[in-house]
Amino acid sequence: MRSLLLIAHGSRRAASNEEVRRIGRALAAKLGDNFSLVEVAFLELAEPDIATAVDRLVAAGSNEVVWFPYFLAAGRHIAHDLPELLTEARARHPEITFIQMPYLGALPGLTDWLASSLTS
Amino acid sequence: MRSLLLIAHGSRRAASNEEVRRIGRALAAKLGDNFSLVEVAFLELAEPDIATAVDRLVAAGSNEVVWFPYFLAAGRHIAHDLPELLTEARARHPEITFIQMPYLGALPGLTDWLASSLTS
Repeated sequence: MRSLLLIAHGSRRAASNEEVRRIGRALAAKLGDNFSLVEVAFLELAEPDIATAVDRLVAAGSNEVVWFPYFLAAGRHIAHDLPELLTEARARHPEITFIQMPYLGALPGLTDWLASSLTS
Repeated sequence: MRSLLLIAHGSRRAASNEEVRRIGRALAAKLGDNFSLVEVAFLELAEPDIATAVDRLVAAGSNEVVWFPYFLAAGRHIAHDLPELLTEARARHPEITFIQMPYLGALPGLTDWLASSLTS
């Protein structure tokens, strides 16, 4: 059972966190059978944190967790904090396969999609 | 003459800012004739700042500036800081048309693109 973990930074502004949760729900609807569950987690300032969200996915029966950072550029969170948290998650759940996706800003096709969005 | 202003947050990590500049160059190549120039600007922590980048676009002959925030969610920067800076830019350059795009996280088609990226 494969699930998606969408990891956002988190904001002091509740509306901003709710916006990311909304993206998670929209994605869940579009991903269909490819992912059984989609959880949104926040690095800081909002709940759930990453460990809690991973535990939820595992408790719900996921044995494959796709780790997808919802970040645009590789600041220190992408370079340091998230890799550490992924190492911790793997240590706590050695039976689970964690698949690391590029963060959003490094996904292939970003500039093609942006170029078409900006000219349509 | 229409130009694109790609506005990122800026990071203390030079590699992160360079990454955004690289996205700007890749976009410029893909946007072709739709935009004469593409400038990347940073809200904080990196150069050029937004006012400097706007001045450059205007000095180069742009009379239409497409204002595109490279942000994923509407935290306080999107809710407060960038609208203020857009108002300032309009006041300083009343002869220029500023076209405000949704920030990246609010572009229509984001979840479609993400869903196809995450399943391909």
